[in-house]
Amino acid sequence: MKKFINRPENVVEEMLEGFVIANAGKLRRLPTERVLVRKDAPVKGKVGIVTGGGSGHKPAFIGYIGKGLVDAVAVGDIFAAPPVQRVYEAIKAVDGGKGVLLCLGNYSGDVMNFGMAQELAQAEGIPVESVIVNDDVASSPKDRMDNRRGVAGEVILWKVVGALAEEGADLAKMKEVGTRAVFNTRSLGVAHTPCIMPSSGKPSFEIGDNEMEIGVGHHGEPGIKRMSMMSADEVTELITLQVIEDLPFQSGDEVTVLINGLGSTSLLEMYICFRKVAQILADHSIKIYRTYIGEFFTSMEMGGFSVTLTKMDDELKRLMDAPCDGVHFIQH
Amino acid sequence: MKKFINRPENVVEEMLEGFVIANAGKLRRLPTERVLVRKDAPVKGKVGIVTGGGSGHKPAFIGYIGKGLVDAVAVGDIFAAPPVQRVYEAIKAVDGGKGVLLCLGNYSGDVMNFGMAQELAQAEGIPVESVIVNDDVASSPKDRMDNRRGVAGEVILWKVVGALAEEGADLAKMKEVGTRAVFNTRSLGVAHTPCIMPSSGKPSFEIGDNEMEIGVGHHGEPGIKRMSMMSADEVTELITLQVIEDLPFQSGDEVTVLINGLGSTSLLEMYICFRKVAQILADHSIKIYRTYIGEFFTSMEMGGFSVTLTKMDDELKRLMDAPCDGVHFIQH
Repeated sequence: MKKFINRPENVVEEMLEGFVIANAGKLRRLPTERVLVRKDAPVKGKVGIVTGGGSGHKPAFIGYIGKGLVDAVAVGDIFAAPPVQRVYEAIKAVDGGKGVLLCLGNYSGDVMNFGMAQELAQAEGIPVESVIVNDDVASSPKDRMDNRRGVAGEVILWKVVGALAEEGADLAKMKEVGTRAVFNTRSLGVAHTPCIMPSSGKPSFEIGDNEMEIGVGHHGEPGIKRMSMMSADEVTELITLQVIEDLPFQSGDEVTVLINGLGSTSLLEMYICFRKVAQILADHSIKIYRTYIGEFFTSMEMGGFSVTLTKMDDELKRLMDAPCDGVHFIQH
Repeated sequence: MKKFINRPENVVEEMLEGFVIANAGKLRRLPTERVLVRKDAPVKGKVGIVTGGGSGHKPAFIGYIGKGLVDAVAVGDIFAAPPVQRVYEAIKAVDGGKGVLLCLGNYSGDVMNFGMAQELAQAEGIPVESVIVNDDVASSPKDRMDNRRGVAGEVILWKVVGALAEEGADLAKMKEVGTRAVFNTRSLGVAHTPCIMPSSGKPSFEIGDNEMEIGVGHHGEPGIKRMSMMSADEVTELITLQVIEDLPFQSGDEVTVLINGLGSTSLLEMYICFRKVAQILADHSIKIYRTYIGEFFTSMEMGGFSVTLTKMDDELKRLMDAPCDGVHFIQH
């Protein structure tokens, strides 16, 4: 296994140690749990935002802690949901009197543990709502959207509700706008190279030397189609058309485009693929409002990328444009 | 070759097309040459900053165009220096009346072409100076520093002179401070996986299944030692001690630390390695002033990372702290 790690069982702990030293100006760690919170949390008069999930997706989740983004992250082991107690402590640490919004991807472990933590906190009188991200169109047909996984679209949710919270919105409003942002967001990815699990040294999925898989999940979950490698334009068209058809995005719509690298795919390739996305959107008379290209939600060194589109409205535009100051996501 | 590209000979052109669409708010392309410039260039009363080099190092070089960083990039082919004419056009495009500073890595092609462009521009009456980056301690012994290659330390140079230019400094001052920043900057890297050249489909260097090489260059140039894979702590110690000894960095010094991922090495690993860097610096009573961790100067999907230290003084601190608004490097 060609990874720069020490003992596999210490990967998350040592990463967190480095992360907290490097970013001590922006965040701190709770003494009792693997929870990182914004340095100034709880922010009085602001709804607190808690997210989290398994480790191995950096810059997600902890790279999004900061002003205009999330207040706390409950950190799980590699690709494993954080335990209930951790999420519960995160909620308590960021409640500034206006309640807490939970943002999570639609994975059974996360849904269960965040749900139980929500109930515990509510029983203590803290108002808590949650928004579950299910933007991956590959993971289930449209008529069973509740079964869809969350992927890079969660970044859009954090940005939108993070900006809203800074404006002083209440919890109900945040749930409403966050839910709309998630509904308006659709993603589809492709991967040609697995990541290697630190614990086992084994790949997250098996794939042939000239193969790629459309819709592979962030943890190596099966996709919808395995194919021979294609040109950048061909694979981008295949993915982007499916994303467009899913909402569907229509002529006259304005969208935020997020091209997310899964790990080892270079920015060079992402820009080549984005060029094709832009052509396809122009052909459909869909206007690009904002563009984000880079590694926003990875699977360690997995090779591949995803295309995320979010349909904008005036409110979402304002929130996407707002400044933010996350560890790995800064916007003026 | 598992890359998302179209025809290999179009890689740079198509990447640039995507890049200009995505970042039209911040930059534009010259009509005649493969040169990208800040949208508002030339900025009157500000020294212009031109950099450039081969493609394949994204976010370097074009990701550093923006306020507080560089004004223009002359874009070469994959791992190939930009031609003289391109650098010359870049100089002319960003001269706002106070002259132009060239920032380049110490590679023979770049040094030759930037040098000739400098002479051409000077012959037309444009004051031009240059600072050549040679931070890679692996590439030559200390008594032949002029032979050393430039690696991730160039990011520090762009940040420092970019901030200085915004303050209104003159060309002589920029050369002086830029030269000092480069002298104060030392880097050393390790790689275990080559990148694949789009043109040939061949790896940039050959290496065994359990091997890593200390000091491999950004283009696969030979390093100083090939070894079996080690733990994160062991390899980080080996690299960091060599960097510390080179300047040498001493007890009481303050440093900026840059941990640069070469492509496929995950942020998770980089934070684990940074944790060890921080321990070593503490053991040496060297204080960390600022920390940057991520992919700042890659070799496409090469696997590995480098450690860069820059010795700070009051002036360099002020310049490192200044805000900047590059495409892929934003600081509040």
